[in-house]
Amino acid sequence: MSHSCDAVYKHRLGTKRLKLVGTDGNPLGNTEVVIKQKKHEFLFGCGEFNSIAYANNELDENGRLKAEDKYKKLFDLFNFVTLPFYWGDFENIKGRPHTQRLKKTAQWLISRGCAVKGHCLCWHSYSAPWLLDMSNSQILSAQLQRIRRESRDFAGLIDIWDLINEVVIMPIYDRYDNGITRICKDVGRIRLVREVFAAAKEANPDAVFLINDFFNTTTDSYDVLIEACLEAGIPIGAIGIQSHMHKGYWGVEKTLKILERFSTFNLPVHFTESTVLSGHHMPQETDDFNDYVPEKWLSTPEGEEQQARETILHYKTLFAHPAVESITWWEFADGQWLGAPSGLLTCENRVKPAYEELHKLIKGKWWTGPEAAISDETGLIEFSGFRGEYELNCHGKKYSFILDKKGGETEIVV
Amino acid sequence: MSHSCDAVYKHRLGTKRLKLVGTDGNPLGNTEVVIKQKKHEFLFGCGEFNSIAYANNELDENGRLKAEDKYKKLFDLFNFVTLPFYWGDFENIKGRPHTQRLKKTAQWLISRGCAVKGHCLCWHSYSAPWLLDMSNSQILSAQLQRIRRESRDFAGLIDIWDLINEVVIMPIYDRYDNGITRICKDVGRIRLVREVFAAAKEANPDAVFLINDFFNTTTDSYDVLIEACLEAGIPIGAIGIQSHMHKGYWGVEKTLKILERFSTFNLPVHFTESTVLSGHHMPQETDDFNDYVPEKWLSTPEGEEQQARETILHYKTLFAHPAVESITWWEFADGQWLGAPSGLLTCENRVKPAYEELHKLIKGKWWTGPEAAISDETGLIEFSGFRGEYELNCHGKKYSFILDKKGGETEIVV
Repeated sequence: MSHSCDAVYKHRLGTKRLKLVGTDGNPLGNTEVVIKQKKHEFLFGCGEFNSIAYANNELDENGRLKAEDKYKKLFDLFNFVTLPFYWGDFENIKGRPHTQRLKKTAQWLISRGCAVKGHCLCWHSYSAPWLLDMSNSQILSAQLQRIRRESRDFAGLIDIWDLINEVVIMPIYDRYDNGITRICKDVGRIRLVREVFAAAKEANPDAVFLINDFFNTTTDSYDVLIEACLEAGIPIGAIGIQSHMHKGYWGVEKTLKILERFSTFNLPVHFTESTVLSGHHMPQETDDFNDYVPEKWLSTPEGEEQQARETILHYKTLFAHPAVESITWWEFADGQWLGAPSGLLTCENRVKPAYEELHKLIKGKWWTGPEAAISDETGLIEFSGFRGEYELNCHGKKYSFILDKKGGETEIVV
Repeated sequence: MSHSCDAVYKHRLGTKRLKLVGTDGNPLGNTEVVIKQKKHEFLFGCGEFNSIAYANNELDENGRLKAEDKYKKLFDLFNFVTLPFYWGDFENIKGRPHTQRLKKTAQWLISRGCAVKGHCLCWHSYSAPWLLDMSNSQILSAQLQRIRRESRDFAGLIDIWDLINEVVIMPIYDRYDNGITRICKDVGRIRLVREVFAAAKEANPDAVFLINDFFNTTTDSYDVLIEACLEAGIPIGAIGIQSHMHKGYWGVEKTLKILERFSTFNLPVHFTESTVLSGHHMPQETDDFNDYVPEKWLSTPEGEEQQARETILHYKTLFAHPAVESITWWEFADGQWLGAPSGLLTCENRVKPAYEELHKLIKGKWWTGPEAAISDETGLIEFSGFRGEYELNCHGKKYSFILDKKGGETEIVV
């Protein structure tokens, strides 16, 4: 039994020999089974910062019901959620980090089948205000200590981190004074990246730590930075690429060019922050996105159709590229950053066409099963499908297996 | 005797005690002298590629006379000239470099009081076409060999080099296939920079080797690249900043921002390629300057007035910044790159207002002497002026001394 898919997605498939055996150890030949995918290996995710309030029972009845409706839709589509660890929020009072609140949220998301990513442990924006009272060496020390603490405290719950964010502009960021720009200016970008990665890997050696950045106008700066970090031997786990397309969808050509460039480093690429709007675009001349504050920023019917088309193109382009291991839609529902119509859902949880079209891909075209199969005389089933977690039904019972790039044979004792 | 100048230029001054003594070793008290500057320590220069034909007697009589008129004006203003070493021209036939032609040119320029800079030993544009027949390791080897050869062959004549040019875009340059983009893509920017600097320093340890680049849209990429190179221990001698302002003068604010950023590396900064036009500007949307090919690009009276005002502002801004050690006006006369009105002279050697205004600064406001002075009873003269080479006249005879940042005392035996 072999799964067929577009040739461009072949690298997403796995193949495995499933061997059915009885409890007596004898192969179960000519046995009917039904196999279906339960989860993607690929990380299809979104940011969902409001899940903290929900998971910690901080919502009123109405809020709780509305959230439950939203999360039903989220878990039906995604297997990955990004939680916020902005230092200024996470530890707004020095020494009182919101560790328990975030742990409870991560545990809840994991219980619902999602992997969790923490975003982000070092960034100049939303950094802790109390850093400003410290010397640069004290700030650096506190920053590294903070990274070690969160990496260790959340190990096993959160093993994927946007470790350091927007290093390209970090030392020249001048909208307001902050502790992280100070130390980055002081020790330099590459030394800071080296220090934060060393601290993080020390605290959680098995986690995947990302460097994450956006493209101001060209991709050169980030490209040079990554080259420099790798040349300096820094153990970057994956390259995070922001793709907030508030000024309009990049298009396939630009996206492919970026993929071509950033895949030369032979590291996994995560699209960490993807946004395609369902309303009007931000003016091209806007430099800092935060400067654009329209009175109203509505999701429109035409905008939603366009968002759906562009979102699908974006996901297809990325899923077709072997280097990409994850796509995070930045905001699951409208009404977040900048008040932009950036969600797959409206503020009222109405599903937009982009959600529906994405669902057709993630849980349809790129999803395997349920499929019936019969083992041969030796009990073997050759199985192929999109990589991920699977369930095999045999004689009314359920068995699990993993389909990954390793392939090989798995024995299932029925 | 102390020289007065605007406070913003104080770092350009030197102070020295000159001690007049007779041949018998006794101090010459109460002796009148006249002191005048002969040359700037600061490198005020220009590109003048046509000097090769002149110095090698390749011009006809008319061409020679016109060139002599031009060079009289050049030497009256500048003390520094950039000569071209584009590989594709310098060694268009493999194994037959134009070493002697360039040596003769450099010797002539030096004899006329100019230091000479070579531009540039590694660049993807104008690289040798025969590299395309070689493997990447052969190209890299030829590139390093070429750097060693020129650095050694010209040592003593050319001890300042734009060693490597436009590394930021080097591996992604896609206008045409070339050997240097190939190896940069292959080994990476930082490794290539490291290799070329190692080869150059090996061949001429005392020379100043620059990395040189332009700003596409932001300064980040070059900033990150330099940081990475320094972090990798690469012995960059000075940072070269191109400032081709064909789209319009940057203005003081932008220039100061760039100076602030690039002076953090504690390396000398050279403005290696400065252009301010005396005609209409290139359209803002032009990406690659080479794409803009107007039928006519005239120097206009209003354009020349504007060029003069902006050029003066540019030089004043740079001369006022302690990190800047050199400004090279890219094209001394019109009719060169892109056919732009980029010169301080027209094609017919007519001096533009920018030349005259620059002259008032370089040989006027920023120039010391002739000044009369009298030694005290112990033969001492406290002298202060813009740093550079000086001539002291005493009793009808001329004596030389250097005024630099070291200060101290110089004995002059009259």
